[in-house]
Amino acid sequence: MNSAEKKAIDTIRTLSMDAVQQANSGHPGTAMALAPLAYLLFNETMKYDPADPNWPGRDRFILSIGHASMLLYSILHLTGTGECDHDGKPTGRPAVSLDDIKNFRQLGSKCAGHPEYGHVSGVEMTTGPLGQGVATSVGFAIGSKWLAARYNSPNFPLFNGNVYALCGDGCMMEGVTAEAASLAGHLKLSNLCWIYDDNGITIEGDTSLAFGEDVETRFNAYGWNVLKVADVNDLNALRRAFDTFRETTDKPTLIIVKSKIAYGAPKLQGSHEAHGAPLGEAEIQGAKKFYGFDPEKKFVVDSDVYETFVDKVGKRGAAERKMWKEQYDSYVETHPELGDELRRIIEGRLPDNWDSAVETFNADPKGMASRISSGKVLNQLAKNIPWMLGGSADLAPSNKSDLTFLGAGEFGATTHAGRNLHFGIREHAMGAITNGLVLMGLRAYCATFFVFADYMRPSMRLAALMKLPALYIFTHDSIGVGEDGPTHQPIEHLASLRAIPNLNVFRPADANEVAESYKEAMRQTATPSCLVLTRQNLPTFDRTKFGSAGGVRQGAYILADAVDGKPDLILIATGSEVALCVEAHEKLTAEGVKVRVVSMPCQELFDRQTREYRESVLPASVRARVGVELGIEQGWRKYIGCGGAFLGLSDFGASAPAGVLMKHFGLTCENLCAIAKKTLGGSGN
Amino acid sequence: MNSAEKKAIDTIRTLSMDAVQQANSGHPGTAMALAPLAYLLFNETMKYDPADPNWPGRDRFILSIGHASMLLYSILHLTGTGECDHDGKPTGRPAVSLDDIKNFRQLGSKCAGHPEYGHVSGVEMTTGPLGQGVATSVGFAIGSKWLAARYNSPNFPLFNGNVYALCGDGCMMEGVTAEAASLAGHLKLSNLCWIYDDNGITIEGDTSLAFGEDVETRFNAYGWNVLKVADVNDLNALRRAFDTFRETTDKPTLIIVKSKIAYGAPKLQGSHEAHGAPLGEAEIQGAKKFYGFDPEKKFVVDSDVYETFVDKVGKRGAAERKMWKEQYDSYVETHPELGDELRRIIEGRLPDNWDSAVETFNADPKGMASRISSGKVLNQLAKNIPWMLGGSADLAPSNKSDLTFLGAGEFGATTHAGRNLHFGIREHAMGAITNGLVLMGLRAYCATFFVFADYMRPSMRLAALMKLPALYIFTHDSIGVGEDGPTHQPIEHLASLRAIPNLNVFRPADANEVAESYKEAMRQTATPSCLVLTRQNLPTFDRTKFGSAGGVRQGAYILADAVDGKPDLILIATGSEVALCVEAHEKLTAEGVKVRVVSMPCQELFDRQTREYRESVLPASVRARVGVELGIEQGWRKYIGCGGAFLGLSDFGASAPAGVLMKHFGLTCENLCAIAKKTLGGSGN
Repeated sequence: MNSAEKKAIDTIRTLSMDAVQQANSGHPGTAMALAPLAYLLFNETMKYDPADPNWPGRDRFILSIGHASMLLYSILHLTGTGECDHDGKPTGRPAVSLDDIKNFRQLGSKCAGHPEYGHVSGVEMTTGPLGQGVATSVGFAIGSKWLAARYNSPNFPLFNGNVYALCGDGCMMEGVTAEAASLAGHLKLSNLCWIYDDNGITIEGDTSLAFGEDVETRFNAYGWNVLKVADVNDLNALRRAFDTFRETTDKPTLIIVKSKIAYGAPKLQGSHEAHGAPLGEAEIQGAKKFYGFDPEKKFVVDSDVYETFVDKVGKRGAAERKMWKEQYDSYVETHPELGDELRRIIEGRLPDNWDSAVETFNADPKGMASRISSGKVLNQLAKNIPWMLGGSADLAPSNKSDLTFLGAGEFGATTHAGRNLHFGIREHAMGAITNGLVLMGLRAYCATFFVFADYMRPSMRLAALMKLPALYIFTHDSIGVGEDGPTHQPIEHLASLRAIPNLNVFRPADANEVAESYKEAMRQTATPSCLVLTRQNLPTFDRTKFGSAGGVRQGAYILADAVDGKPDLILIATGSEVALCVEAHEKLTAEGVKVRVVSMPCQELFDRQTREYRESVLPASVRARVGVELGIEQGWRKYIGCGGAFLGLSDFGASAPAGVLMKHFGLTCENLCAIAKKTLGGSGN
Repeated sequence: MNSAEKKAIDTIRTLSMDAVQQANSGHPGTAMALAPLAYLLFNETMKYDPADPNWPGRDRFILSIGHASMLLYSILHLTGTGECDHDGKPTGRPAVSLDDIKNFRQLGSKCAGHPEYGHVSGVEMTTGPLGQGVATSVGFAIGSKWLAARYNSPNFPLFNGNVYALCGDGCMMEGVTAEAASLAGHLKLSNLCWIYDDNGITIEGDTSLAFGEDVETRFNAYGWNVLKVADVNDLNALRRAFDTFRETTDKPTLIIVKSKIAYGAPKLQGSHEAHGAPLGEAEIQGAKKFYGFDPEKKFVVDSDVYETFVDKVGKRGAAERKMWKEQYDSYVETHPELGDELRRIIEGRLPDNWDSAVETFNADPKGMASRISSGKVLNQLAKNIPWMLGGSADLAPSNKSDLTFLGAGEFGATTHAGRNLHFGIREHAMGAITNGLVLMGLRAYCATFFVFADYMRPSMRLAALMKLPALYIFTHDSIGVGEDGPTHQPIEHLASLRAIPNLNVFRPADANEVAESYKEAMRQTATPSCLVLTRQNLPTFDRTKFGSAGGVRQGAYILADAVDGKPDLILIATGSEVALCVEAHEKLTAEGVKVRVVSMPCQELFDRQTREYRESVLPASVRARVGVELGIEQGWRKYIGCGGAFLGLSDFGASAPAGVLMKHFGLTCENLCAIAKKTLGGSGN
């Protein structure tokens, strides 16, 4: 490495050390160790223009080891990466100023403890929970391949971006990484490059404590191209490895790089103590001396360091982006329809007619399972939204999640324009990959049995945190699953998903609520949505007789009411239990009870309505209320109040036909009416 | 295979087909395919005595492909496995009668859709969610090695059991399996044998849709011994493979067995349609003809088939168990102390003095982080409970979960008596392995950051469902985490874990509540417990002034009260917010407000108290209540009522020092007092 390179790299190291020390919190060691790699990636390897970090033609870099955030913040600062506003337009301000770095880990600083998507420009995704970054990178790579297959044409290679993800021993041990790596190998994602920082250190000590596998052989087994770099400080070896990656066209690449954590720190280099705590002034000064920096000075960036970055990534990136922009403008002119699609993808907008094919379902007392109506609506939507794509964790025939219309196609190792993905039995990676697809601008969905939402929860949480409009299709709701028994009957999952902030949980009551729930989910731009769907049939309500399914947009609405609109009793239900309430409504009305049925497909949306609307649906004066849902009571007291009662489940389910279970657990009209009357008489539960 | 073997094997197949057809629900194909394997394992390979399926010296068999439950039920029936009561004593009745099989998947049948632990004798664990069985088997294997290391002596090889787990493509793709396999290889668990049913079929179709990896090479990379059997019907090849496994002393074994799903079905053999639905009468009749069975008859078991099993596993198992029992009795006599430990392990009882070393913490306004007091109490308990063992997912220094007393030791590839496990950065497998350890009779715990409970949730759910007293040590609670920011700040996790039935969630308020929570967790025999602990300091309350920490046993108790015991206002809090309420109590009392502080470390325990006790703590007449918890409100309305208010969080946290965040999110005495007064004035939120 020449002296300019060395100085730039050592500046990354000193900024990282200084920021962690000043914050008295953070992870200095890995940022110091991997500075040469980050330097090279951004300066020489990646298509990246600091002037517009959102340029669609760029390569992606994902810091899967999010705790080494100072590595990324330093690079964003030194490259002079510009800030973009929420519409992705450059503001002219820096993404990360030196002051931001000095305020590392302080309230409001752009330099949060872990890189946060949407919080600072140039961060492709939020990372920190281990494994998520690398797993999500597979979604980026699939998305890039898909965009290339659909939009590139011979003279317009608009999408040929590569995806780089940097991971460590933690990511390597996480199961979600294994799932994603296996699928990436299967799909031969040649645009994907993981760099594994093989530093031999974890928090508890040497990796030999718990990690004895042969990573190289394992990735060979997955069908990856595995390269090794013996020393991260050897820039030429890194260059050769990245060249080999870019020349490899038939498989993803893993580059195993040896590094020494806290490189340059006199005592802590190579020690697990340098992982997650400030080094202390003595070590920092020692390291600075080793780098040839003034040990007394902090946050030093000499102007020639900035110049080094401008000369390299600055100039190269600007030229590459200019060429791409010209191509893009010309493409939009030559291919107006595809160009219009692209513009919408980039801007996060749907086609004008996106929901025009969604049909209304006719009233039908027999009805259909909501997984069936879901399959229909999904296809009606996807037909008009060309960049809507997804798949199931090997349950498509049960989830009814296949796109079956002509031309939908399968996404496979050699068929990149297909829109049906096969995730395999890998729910967690499916969740992460879906995040990556959405981050590429695509409207992605994924599907599995509702009970297995637990397997993908960490990725769903990140979707909510990143404000991604991902779509989760969860079928086989509650004890309606029947014979498969308690391992397959989600009874606490509604509550546990409602607990995640910024996640809309829809549990539609009939086919038309399914349609409206899908539409509402698709309208979201910053909130993921779950659709919770039944295995068993649900009647399709006669909407000439009942409230309009359009009420789904308000989260809850009056489905059936007392004749005079002044009920003494309110039955509130979601999903499959709404029909039970309608049945009870008929019975109780016949008995002279003034009863209202409120269908509440999405509590999150209802909570966001005006006080007036909420009062109109659930008047405070009506204290006799019964909540009915085939799940636990948690969270319901808010709606049923202190005088109300709840009919649901309080324990795991059982194995038996669904109809038998409904009776067994008291989900009958008789029982509901009895509870309702008791509540009306003043005794809730 | 000779004719007796063939007939026995085909009987397993026909029972499986018939049961699924009769239930009109279930998974016939794999049970049919793997009948030879199950036959051989139970009849020839495993140490197993049908007369006492709980015999501690037995080998373990785990059907990780739980959907193939009829395979196991058929074997339990044909071997004449006896039923045991809840204390593990044989009742004299069969574990699975032919009638049970005829009632497969019906309410109350022992033959539930998936094998359920505790529901039918001979089922080692509940399986169904893919990957859990194999991952848990690693815990069984570790437990077996540990028991051997601690209790075996030269003349008493009491524990040398092997662990067999049967898995398919689904298990192979799940990340939890990858995590567990890597750790098993690292630990060189030579007593562990996985059998991988390589049938090339998943629900969506051929495995080539999504699964292209080289499993053999992957497991070689993990350090396993990989064997292959080209046809599951070749009993001699299976015998050789199992022999090789038993001769291998330095690594776990994977046997890759090729099979044809629905073997024998004329049209559906080898088809994914035979996976999860009845075959239909025509296919069943065709298969029966192929086996040489009468196609018209159902549920046929000829008496000579029973005799085959009696002659083989029946006689061999009885002899093996008898020998073991003699050894055991003699051991107990020779080694009375160790023998007493063993008896307690087998009976699920703790040592008499198990909690005698737990010290009371002195009042201290500065106090200590509850992760620190947790570390102390954990060590005090583990010192007196020799079979208490566990570890962290690479966060032991942060979780304070290491056993530090002399002789605690490390469990490693060559040190099997150690009690500190290193799970690596594999939270999900850690959860599953902990289940396995508990199923072996050990009091196992595991630890990670609270936010990563999400990674292990599927295994925790199984612990709750199986009624295992597992212990989860979750440190770094809520925004008290500080600078690491929202990816590391669990704010919805209390609600989401409270949602799981039969799981006690403890959030202790000070060091003495930590001690009491641990004791309550250890008293459990059928319920797992979470301990939610802080990174930041908590004052240790002066219990001469405040209510006794013994109140933890009731889940909630009066910590501080109005002078006359007749409060106008109740502040209810858990964990770190109790101190805030005590501060507010002082301030409000000084202002003349009659206020009570209720510490509520475990809502589940409180809910189980008598109505009288609950009324004494939270009198219905006091409607001015404020709930305070650094998490979301979900579930709190139940305690604060309609007139109450809640002070907590409603969205993800942020990155900043913890103290700054507390102010930022309004967790201050001033704010709490203001809310309290407003509530007292009649306006809750």
